[in-house]
Amino acid sequence: MHIKKIAARAKTTLVTRLRQVQAPKAATTAVAAVKGGVTAAQGYRAAGVKAGIKASKKPDLAVVVSDRAASAAGTFTRNAIRASSVTRCENLLPASGVRAMLCNSGCANACTGKQGVKDTDATAALVAKALNITPKSVLTASTGVIGKFLPMDKIAAAVPNLVKALSPTGGGAFAQAIMTTDLAKKESAVKVTVGRRSFTIGGTVKGSGMIHPNMATMLCFITTDAAVTPAVLNGIVKGVVDRTFNNLTVDGDTSTNDMALVMANGASGVEIKGHVAGGKELVAAFEEGLFTVCNDLCKQIAADGEGATKRVEINVTGARSEAEAKAAAKAVATSNLTKCALFGNDPNWGRIACAVGYSGAKFSDTRMSIKLCGIEVFKNLQPVKFDEKKAHTLMKKKVVVIDIDLGVGKKSATAHTCDFSYDYVKINAEYRT
Amino acid sequence: MHIKKIAARAKTTLVTRLRQVQAPKAATTAVAAVKGGVTAAQGYRAAGVKAGIKASKKPDLAVVVSDRAASAAGTFTRNAIRASSVTRCENLLPASGVRAMLCNSGCANACTGKQGVKDTDATAALVAKALNITPKSVLTASTGVIGKFLPMDKIAAAVPNLVKALSPTGGGAFAQAIMTTDLAKKESAVKVTVGRRSFTIGGTVKGSGMIHPNMATMLCFITTDAAVTPAVLNGIVKGVVDRTFNNLTVDGDTSTNDMALVMANGASGVEIKGHVAGGKELVAAFEEGLFTVCNDLCKQIAADGEGATKRVEINVTGARSEAEAKAAAKAVATSNLTKCALFGNDPNWGRIACAVGYSGAKFSDTRMSIKLCGIEVFKNLQPVKFDEKKAHTLMKKKVVVIDIDLGVGKKSATAHTCDFSYDYVKINAEYRT
Repeated sequence: MHIKKIAARAKTTLVTRLRQVQAPKAATTAVAAVKGGVTAAQGYRAAGVKAGIKASKKPDLAVVVSDRAASAAGTFTRNAIRASSVTRCENLLPASGVRAMLCNSGCANACTGKQGVKDTDATAALVAKALNITPKSVLTASTGVIGKFLPMDKIAAAVPNLVKALSPTGGGAFAQAIMTTDLAKKESAVKVTVGRRSFTIGGTVKGSGMIHPNMATMLCFITTDAAVTPAVLNGIVKGVVDRTFNNLTVDGDTSTNDMALVMANGASGVEIKGHVAGGKELVAAFEEGLFTVCNDLCKQIAADGEGATKRVEINVTGARSEAEAKAAAKAVATSNLTKCALFGNDPNWGRIACAVGYSGAKFSDTRMSIKLCGIEVFKNLQPVKFDEKKAHTLMKKKVVVIDIDLGVGKKSATAHTCDFSYDYVKINAEYRT
Repeated sequence: MHIKKIAARAKTTLVTRLRQVQAPKAATTAVAAVKGGVTAAQGYRAAGVKAGIKASKKPDLAVVVSDRAASAAGTFTRNAIRASSVTRCENLLPASGVRAMLCNSGCANACTGKQGVKDTDATAALVAKALNITPKSVLTASTGVIGKFLPMDKIAAAVPNLVKALSPTGGGAFAQAIMTTDLAKKESAVKVTVGRRSFTIGGTVKGSGMIHPNMATMLCFITTDAAVTPAVLNGIVKGVVDRTFNNLTVDGDTSTNDMALVMANGASGVEIKGHVAGGKELVAAFEEGLFTVCNDLCKQIAADGEGATKRVEINVTGARSEAEAKAAAKAVATSNLTKCALFGNDPNWGRIACAVGYSGAKFSDTRMSIKLCGIEVFKNLQPVKFDEKKAHTLMKKKVVVIDIDLGVGKKSATAHTCDFSYDYVKINAEYRT
């Protein structure tokens, strides 16, 4: 069922992509959803174990290992207060020769000064030693409470178990062990076929609070068995993240630990060579596959946003530029008032218009319009009589779509978010108790 | 009691002001809190009546009238979606010859197109006719639900009662009639004495949601019996609003109807002539008085923020510039996660550091520090061991102070906000039901 759902999305995505980029003939490229996450692609093993970092005794240490040297690239939080794991990865990437991505949950190891830097390095070294690889080939990530030190003794004790548990079907255990307030583990994978060549891209993310990525993302781990040079991978990853995770918000707070990491190990034998003669088609196919996975993970984060009762998609069209479309969509996605109205199933479109108004995006004085669950509520900058009861009923669905036409151009963007409920407040008032 | 409280604040403010501006010798100037709001100054009458705009049948139409022509200036929302009342006032001001400020609650008359513009003009004309003054001398403001038209028949029927009710002690009725989700009416006034000359400044504001003023403010009405030319008044008002209301947030949503209006009618006989020879001292005293009133009203809005259980003051020091100090203070004040932690009395300072990190303000790698309720929790960018139970207990108070030292300069700013509770969500999920 999950696979079918993603397949349908992949199709929609394809149409979108064809409009946005000058993609090659679609006939030769197919993007199909497959099961799994970080171990969906060939040549990866993963594990997730309990190290005792979380008070809840749930799994909290995860690693995914490539059986051969891989290219890797990433995007990183623009928060100036950043965890040492983020700084470490940003210094290392893009790179070739990468072997593993390590992540702990329950402790963000942010705002921990020099000790925090040492602990991150020590964690990478522990795992590297157990795997008999270099520390530099191990990427590190952390998530959880800010301002706490990593319990290094517990991590040291857990690393042998972690390495022992590595398995080609360990993607689910990995996805489980990186969760904090997430209610569901999040995975997505696709098989991309271009003519007779095929490769797989799969990944996982963690939400669910402090989600407002800025030029980066929350924690995301993606693996592929395509071969991609670090420079090409870097360019593609940054572009795709900008169109997916950077249009996502749960609560407007950009985290100290946001990071999206992608490893490409070439185990499929398919080489993505960049926009050189003959390579264009494969690059577009890879970008398409990566977009599909990231976009699906985005929706999974929004649906599992802290306290969320529904997922919300905000489509802005008719903008002068993609940047303005994005600004308008994100302003609505971030508006607390709009999100409370969504929780109350109240078609209070005035709050949506208000957020567009302060977004900085240019709109038409005579043509700006808003649809809520497909119902026209504001047309040509004038209120429209509509069936409020019908709108109220439609808003109770698990996915609510808001369409905004700015009426001044041809550019568009989509933002992802969720509603704002009592439970968001509850979760975050009691987070550390 | 209220007066005493404000007097204490006025004193603090004075000290602050002396540090920030090159004020004249303090000995000659005194700013003392007095009772009242828009009718505290001489030569003003006000009223608030029930026109039936609100479904709750509470007072919803208010006016304050000067018995002589007054100078007036204002600041206005930077939201591009703006009510016709805002556009009308911005076109009229700064001006001399102003006689009245009119405000309705229960209907924002925003997103109402051409009809909305006509209705605003018609409302001003109705009141002008009843007072036998020109429509241009009546300033207009609206607050309430966006996208609804003003019930013009009800307003027309209520205007005679409104004018009949005008009284030199009507400031409280005015403050009452402009409320929407506010739980308490908000008034503040001071008597400013410079040598043997004295004048009064008094005002009122409405909160309590969609509060995140940007180069403007929520609805604020201030009157003074000092004589100030429109140009001088305009400059002083913009400066003071920038240091008070523009550092205030309840929920991060900048309203379509924000506006701060100030009338100066000269009834005290004291003339504020601008920074010319001999006038400097009076300008500084007037600015000081206006700052005291606006700052006090700011605190009252924060304390009565939708769903608030406490008021929060964020003091940032050690910044490179006032703009960066303000950016850091406002980022913390706007952070949903910080505000949920404040509601839960959780000394989770990591969220404060996180917000400073994404604010864009420069901070020192070795000297950035945070105090929560006076307790040092983060020092020199390192976590500090502190008594969490004591912090938890102190955070239960009605006013919580957060001190952040960026450690890179000498500039400072203060932001005002409240915590984020279940009730904020409840109020805004059910606002129109």
